[in-house]
Amino acid sequence: MAQNTPEHVQAAMRAGLRRLAKAVVVITCSFENKRYAMAATAVSELSMNPPSLLICVNKSASISQPLAHRVDFAVNILHSSHEAISNLCSGAIKGEERFKLGNWQTGGTGVPILADAQAVFECRHAEMHAFGTHDIVIGEVFACAVSGDVSPLIYVDGRYMSPL
Amino acid sequence: MAQNTPEHVQAAMRAGLRRLAKAVVVITCSFENKRYAMAATAVSELSMNPPSLLICVNKSASISQPLAHRVDFAVNILHSSHEAISNLCSGAIKGEERFKLGNWQTGGTGVPILADAQAVFECRHAEMHAFGTHDIVIGEVFACAVSGDVSPLIYVDGRYMSPL
Repeated sequence: MAQNTPEHVQAAMRAGLRRLAKAVVVITCSFENKRYAMAATAVSELSMNPPSLLICVNKSASISQPLAHRVDFAVNILHSSHEAISNLCSGAIKGEERFKLGNWQTGGTGVPILADAQAVFECRHAEMHAFGTHDIVIGEVFACAVSGDVSPLIYVDGRYMSPL
Repeated sequence: MAQNTPEHVQAAMRAGLRRLAKAVVVITCSFENKRYAMAATAVSELSMNPPSLLICVNKSASISQPLAHRVDFAVNILHSSHEAISNLCSGAIKGEERFKLGNWQTGGTGVPILADAQAVFECRHAEMHAFGTHDIVIGEVFACAVSGDVSPLIYVDGRYMSPL
């Protein structure tokens, strides 16, 4: 067992999280006529009553401010063919340029949705709880659509993989 | 787009969540001399400062009551060889019998930990937020250890898979 200084725990936790395999999603919203997109894995199903999920967002992320304004948002599960979209939405390029790859459309309440995502969950902001560097944003799902064969892009051990 | 009655949204959301691939974990704790274990996928990394994660637990689950008493808990990421442990910890058998499969040991603060789990995150209860049928429990990670090759058990489309 590693010593439990904060630095040791952080390093050990990083190593442990590499094994917490996750589907890659892109979180999207629109605020003051600007579109935002951020690749993420810190997403969890929450409840079926009401239909809801949560996302954990670093307060330093560009998308944090619009989310703090309680805008609607979408969680788009990427297909295994969407690796380039994941890279684009987690790299140095920000803002509108993140939408230059992918078949992006607009949901009923103006939120960007990826037409051929594995699944798109359109959410109304329900609650937000700050913890440490992050906000936990709870979304009440008001619409969900799936598309294509089941083949989500998965991130594990610092690499992409797919179920096939 | 499906009609947005609550029943339609729930059905669509279930279909969508089948594509949200996730590592399978077992959440464990000990309370009043009883051990609890529950297989789950509703887990997310939260912050590195403080090191933390969150779990979403149905209030009707056996483990819900001890967690509401703010006990320490552990999140054990299962190895691809641990499918039987996942089944045992999500089936009809409850309580102590859930520990009859697997190399279970006891962490520093008395929490059951799976010795050959992909990773074990030992957590102090930090906060809890109720939402709908579930509680969101935030754990501050005070110890983490990894074990073995990287091969987490993954659940997607109602089936188990592994990265290999």
